[in-house]
Amino acid sequence: MVSGSSNLVRYNRGMNVGVLGTGVVGQAQAAKLSELDHDVVVGTRDTKDKKIKGLKIVSFAEAAAHGELIIEALNGNAALTVLKLLKKQLAGKVLIDISNPLDFSSGELRLTVINDDSLGEQIQKALPKTKVVKAFNTMNASVQVDPASVAGGDHHLFIAGDDKKAKTEVEKLAKSYGWKNIMDLGGIKSSRGMEMILPIWLNLFGVLGTANFNFKITK
Amino acid sequence: MVSGSSNLVRYNRGMNVGVLGTGVVGQAQAAKLSELDHDVVVGTRDTKDKKIKGLKIVSFAEAAAHGELIIEALNGNAALTVLKLLKKQLAGKVLIDISNPLDFSSGELRLTVINDDSLGEQIQKALPKTKVVKAFNTMNASVQVDPASVAGGDHHLFIAGDDKKAKTEVEKLAKSYGWKNIMDLGGIKSSRGMEMILPIWLNLFGVLGTANFNFKITK
Repeated sequence: MVSGSSNLVRYNRGMNVGVLGTGVVGQAQAAKLSELDHDVVVGTRDTKDKKIKGLKIVSFAEAAAHGELIIEALNGNAALTVLKLLKKQLAGKVLIDISNPLDFSSGELRLTVINDDSLGEQIQKALPKTKVVKAFNTMNASVQVDPASVAGGDHHLFIAGDDKKAKTEVEKLAKSYGWKNIMDLGGIKSSRGMEMILPIWLNLFGVLGTANFNFKITK
Repeated sequence: MVSGSSNLVRYNRGMNVGVLGTGVVGQAQAAKLSELDHDVVVGTRDTKDKKIKGLKIVSFAEAAAHGELIIEALNGNAALTVLKLLKKQLAGKVLIDISNPLDFSSGELRLTVINDDSLGEQIQKALPKTKVVKAFNTMNASVQVDPASVAGGDHHLFIAGDDKKAKTEVEKLAKSYGWKNIMDLGGIKSSRGMEMILPIWLNLFGVLGTANFNFKITK
């Protein structure tokens, strides 16, 4: 395990990664990272309840401490609460925020953070010593880790974050997943547009009858 | 001039079209429609102020009365107020809503209608006898009327509306502009996602340094 203040991450293999969240996204990311020979643990709230074949399930705190790199794949409505408790373990590290502030409780899709704020920004504000990079939140989990499964990979991954080096590291990771088209949208403020694309994503999911699609920017 | 209750529109040539709004979008749409030999007038609030080469500028009411088909290219924050005054002239007609509820007055981009409502829905509610189709709002004016100018036209036009026949008519019009990929996102409620894509559109505009791009859905 590398100390929390280390910025050195190895993308080819052997990196310690802490995945937060045992949902579809957390599982897909953890499986891909394990396949790429990284040392992956997956953090959950209550380890007693969780047994997922092939994954090392630990507490949130253990996953946050284990990772040189953190993949945050929490439910968007819980993310901020969980992350605030892990502030110390996450200091100095790169955290990839995949979460979306979606709320279906009213029967209608609503984003709980919107317009002049975003979940990405709220997370960066709550964890000022962590290098938050918004990424992978605009496509299905299977597409995140296997971009070639859609149109041979000819579509876009958007990333946003205030720390340029952190974004370079996330780009390297994405390339190791097979991503060819990565578009840096700027600072963490650009999470706004990346989160507000979810309503049309869900609409397209319904119309196309599959989640196996993605946005490509043509020019 | 055809009566307000007529649903018969001719897309090849010779159709009466009323464009509402003299901004960049209204001008581009009017110029394209004129080029395609339609009889186009452009409605504005105060006809004394407006002289635009090659366009017949009339009042909002005259444009609404003239059109068998209406292109609504108003400022998103004025659209509803203007349209409510034209209720009678617009009854029975297909209205293409291109407007976006963008507000930059705070210094930050905000959508004034969002989440569980949209401008498209508000317009349909205000004009129950008009067949509102949301379209063309997710790309630059030049791309709207000349899709081949971006990647040879290999990208998507989204449309949404409650009236299937009206959407078929809008698809025919779009095809006459050169659109090859048209995706029907469903009822007018799908305006939500189409409007909420604007923040990332504006972000991409800044990053790419050009408005000459568009979204393509790859699968």
